Amino acid sequence: MRNVVVLGVGMTIFGKQPDKSIREMGEEAAFLALRDAGVNPGDIQAAWCGNVLGSLCGQQAAVGQTVLDQVGITGIPIVRVENACASSSFAFKEAYMAVSSGYYDMVIAMGVEKMSGYDTETTLRAMAGTSDYDLEGVLGITFPGVFGMITRRHMHEYGTTMEQLAHVAVKNRKNGTLNPKSQFQGTVSIDEVLNSRMISSPLTLYNCCPVSDGCAVAILTTDQFAKRFSAEPIAVAASVQTSGTYRNDLDITKFEPTVRAAQQAYEQAGIGPEDVSLAEVHDCFTIAEIMHYEDLGFCKKGDGGPLATSGDTQINGKIPVNPSGGLLSKGHPIGATGVAQIIEIVEQLRGRAGTRQVKNPKVGLAHCLGAFRHADVCSASVTLLKK
Amino acid sequence: MRNVVVLGVGMTIFGKQPDKSIREMGEEAAFLALRDAGVNPGDIQAAWCGNVLGSLCGQQAAVGQTVLDQVGITGIPIVRVENACASSSFAFKEAYMAVSSGYYDMVIAMGVEKMSGYDTETTLRAMAGTSDYDLEGVLGITFPGVFGMITRRHMHEYGTTMEQLAHVAVKNRKNGTLNPKSQFQGTVSIDEVLNSRMISSPLTLYNCCPVSDGCAVAILTTDQFAKRFSAEPIAVAASVQTSGTYRNDLDITKFEPTVRAAQQAYEQAGIGPEDVSLAEVHDCFTIAEIMHYEDLGFCKKGDGGPLATSGDTQINGKIPVNPSGGLLSKGHPIGATGVAQIIEIVEQLRGRAGTRQVKNPKVGLAHCLGAFRHADVCSASVTLLKK
Repeated sequence: MRNVVVLGVGMTIFGKQPDKSIREMGEEAAFLALRDAGVNPGDIQAAWCGNVLGSLCGQQAAVGQTVLDQVGITGIPIVRVENACASSSFAFKEAYMAVSSGYYDMVIAMGVEKMSGYDTETTLRAMAGTSDYDLEGVLGITFPGVFGMITRRHMHEYGTTMEQLAHVAVKNRKNGTLNPKSQFQGTVSIDEVLNSRMISSPLTLYNCCPVSDGCAVAILTTDQFAKRFSAEPIAVAASVQTSGTYRNDLDITKFEPTVRAAQQAYEQAGIGPEDVSLAEVHDCFTIAEIMHYEDLGFCKKGDGGPLATSGDTQINGKIPVNPSGGLLSKGHPIGATGVAQIIEIVEQLRGRAGTRQVKNPKVGLAHCLGAFRHADVCSASVTLLKK
Repeated sequence: MRNVVVLGVGMTIFGKQPDKSIREMGEEAAFLALRDAGVNPGDIQAAWCGNVLGSLCGQQAAVGQTVLDQVGITGIPIVRVENACASSSFAFKEAYMAVSSGYYDMVIAMGVEKMSGYDTETTLRAMAGTSDYDLEGVLGITFPGVFGMITRRHMHEYGTTMEQLAHVAVKNRKNGTLNPKSQFQGTVSIDEVLNSRMISSPLTLYNCCPVSDGCAVAILTTDQFAKRFSAEPIAVAASVQTSGTYRNDLDITKFEPTVRAAQQAYEQAGIGPEDVSLAEVHDCFTIAEIMHYEDLGFCKKGDGGPLATSGDTQINGKIPVNPSGGLLSKGHPIGATGVAQIIEIVEQLRGRAGTRQVKNPKVGLAHCLGAFRHADVCSASVTLLKK
C-alpha cells in the first residue's frame, strides 16, 4: 500500500445560500481545491462525491459530474456516494483506498449539499429517508427525537446535565466566530442555550445544528507524487468505516460503530487517543459531541459531561474539539460535512487556521456519523491525519 | 494487485413486483448469493450497493444497510453508490478495486431497485434527476426523447432502418423466454415491434425497455480465497469506468465513454473484441444495442444495423449479445442492472444458463451506461469476465 496525502483543499462558506445552486457551490470549492493543490483539472483521474438531498428531494442525483464539469474535469470515473451525514467521509475513504492501492495517483473526494429552500416537511421526510424509512420514517421519529431520548438516557446513566451540554454549544459557537466560513458568527451564553426554544426535549434550539448549504473538496495523491507540487501535503494515517445496529449493542448512550472505527483507526495509525492533538467530531447535537468524547477515548465512559466543562476541549486545551465551530456553528450541509472536517484538520496541521489555530498539532482526527443506531443504517467514519 | 473472482451470485426475478419491498427483494437476492458462494454472512467484510429511485422518489436512501441487515450482515462498511443506470456496475468496480488492492478479502457488490408503484410523473421526474436536471429536466427532455433523436441521426448517417432495430427487440424478447428471471416471457414479431404504439418517434413501445423491480447480488473474493469454497469462481479480467460529455465528442451516434471504457478494458485484459464470447449490453432502447455493437468493437461504425439482422448476435451466433433477454426483455430495475448483467455472464461462463446457454464461452463482457451525453453526467462501465 502507498502512503496517501491530502494535497489540496477547498470549501465554500457554510450556511444558507439561497442564491447558489449545487453546481455553483461545487464549482467554487473545486476551483479552490485545485488552486490550493496547484494541480490542473486534467491531473485528476477519478472522483467520489458525497451528496444526499440532491436526490432525496428529487432534483439531481449525479451531482459529482455536474459539478466537476464546471471546472473542466470530465471523462474520468465520477462516483456518487451516499451514506447519510457520513456521505463525504465515505467518499474520502473510497478515494483513499483507490490512491493507496495504486489504482489512481490523483483523485478528488468531495461532498456538496443544498438543504435550504425546502419546506420543513420536505426536509424532515428527506432526513427520515437517510435513516430507515420503513421502520422509523413511517413512525414519525426524527433525528432530534432520537437524540432527545439519548440525552435523557445519558443523564440518567451518568448524571450528565443541561449545563454540561450547553458548554459544548458555547464552545463551538465561540470557535465559529474565529472561522470565516462558519454559518454562525456570534457567540451564545450558557443561559441563552438553556433558555432557547425547545426543539426535542430536553434539547433546546442551540443544542441542535442548523440546516446548511455548502461544498467541501479534497485532492488526494501519494507522498511521492506530492513532491512534484508546491502545496503542503498532509498524510492520511488511517481511514476507517464501520456500520452497526442495536443487534451489536443495546446501549444507546454510545455509538458502538464509532468505538470500533476509532479502535481500528488508532491501530492502523499505530497511536492511541492520547496522541491526538485535535479532533473534528460529528456534533449534530451537543449530546453527540459528549458521546464522541467517550467513544473516541478522549475520556472514560460517562465522563463526557465533565470533560465538556473542564476547558480541555477548548482551542487552547489538552484536546481541542471542533475548533472549526463544528456542525453546531460551522453548519451541517450533510453530504459535505465529512470532507469539511478533514479540511479543518488539514489547515490546522498546516498551521493555517488563523485565530483558531491549535498550538503545534501533530495528529488530527475527523469523525463522522451517518444516520442512527435504532435499526440498521448507522455508520461511522474515523480519519486520522498527521503532519 | 490480486486476482479477483466472482464467487457467488444471486438475483430475484426482474419485473413489476408490487408486493415486494426493496428490503424483501434485497434479502432474497443476498441470501441466494451467499448460498451460491457457500459463504456465511460473517465472511463479508464490506459491501457496495447501487440504488437510484430509493432516494430520488424520496423514501429510502440507505438501502444497502437495510437490505443486508436482513441476512445478518452488519457492522461492516456498506456504501451506497449512485450513478444512474450504471449504479451497480460502479458498485462492482468499487468492490473489485477493494479486493484487488488487498483491503478486503470477501465483499458484496449489489444493486436493488423498486420502480413500479409510482405514477408516471414521479418516475419521469426521478429519471430526469439521474441526468442533468438543471439543463434538461426543466426542459422536459426524457431518455426516450434523447434516444429518439439518436435513432434519427443514426438512420441519417448510416442508413439504419426500423426493421434492423426491430430485430434487436425480437432477439432479446426471444432470449427472455429462455430466462425464468426475465420480466417478459413472450416473443414479439418484427411487425409487432414496428406497429406497437409510438413512444418517442421513431421508437415504438417494443423498442423501449420496461419499468422493473429487482435485485442482483455478487460476492467477490480473490482467486486464492476462492479455493477454500466449493463454488465455481469466475475471474474478473477487467473493470473500467469512464464518463464523458459532448465536450469530448459531438457525435451523438456513438457513446464516446463506452468506446474509451472498452478500449481500456480490452487493454487491461490483454484481449480484443474478437476474443469476446458473449456480451450483455445496455439495451435500454433497440438503437442503444446497435450503437454498443459499434462502440464495443463488434463491428465497424455504422454497421450495427446490418449486424442486428445477420444472426451473429443470436445465442448460437458468432457474438451472442444479451442472451439473458437484456434490458428490453429481462427488464431494467436501473440500480440492479449492472450486477444482473455480470450475473448472466458468470452463469454463462459456468455453463449453467440452461436453454439459453452460449456454446463454450471463454470471455464475457458486461456493458452498462449511466445517463446520457447531452451535458456532463454520462458514464460507461465495461467489465470483462473469463473462465
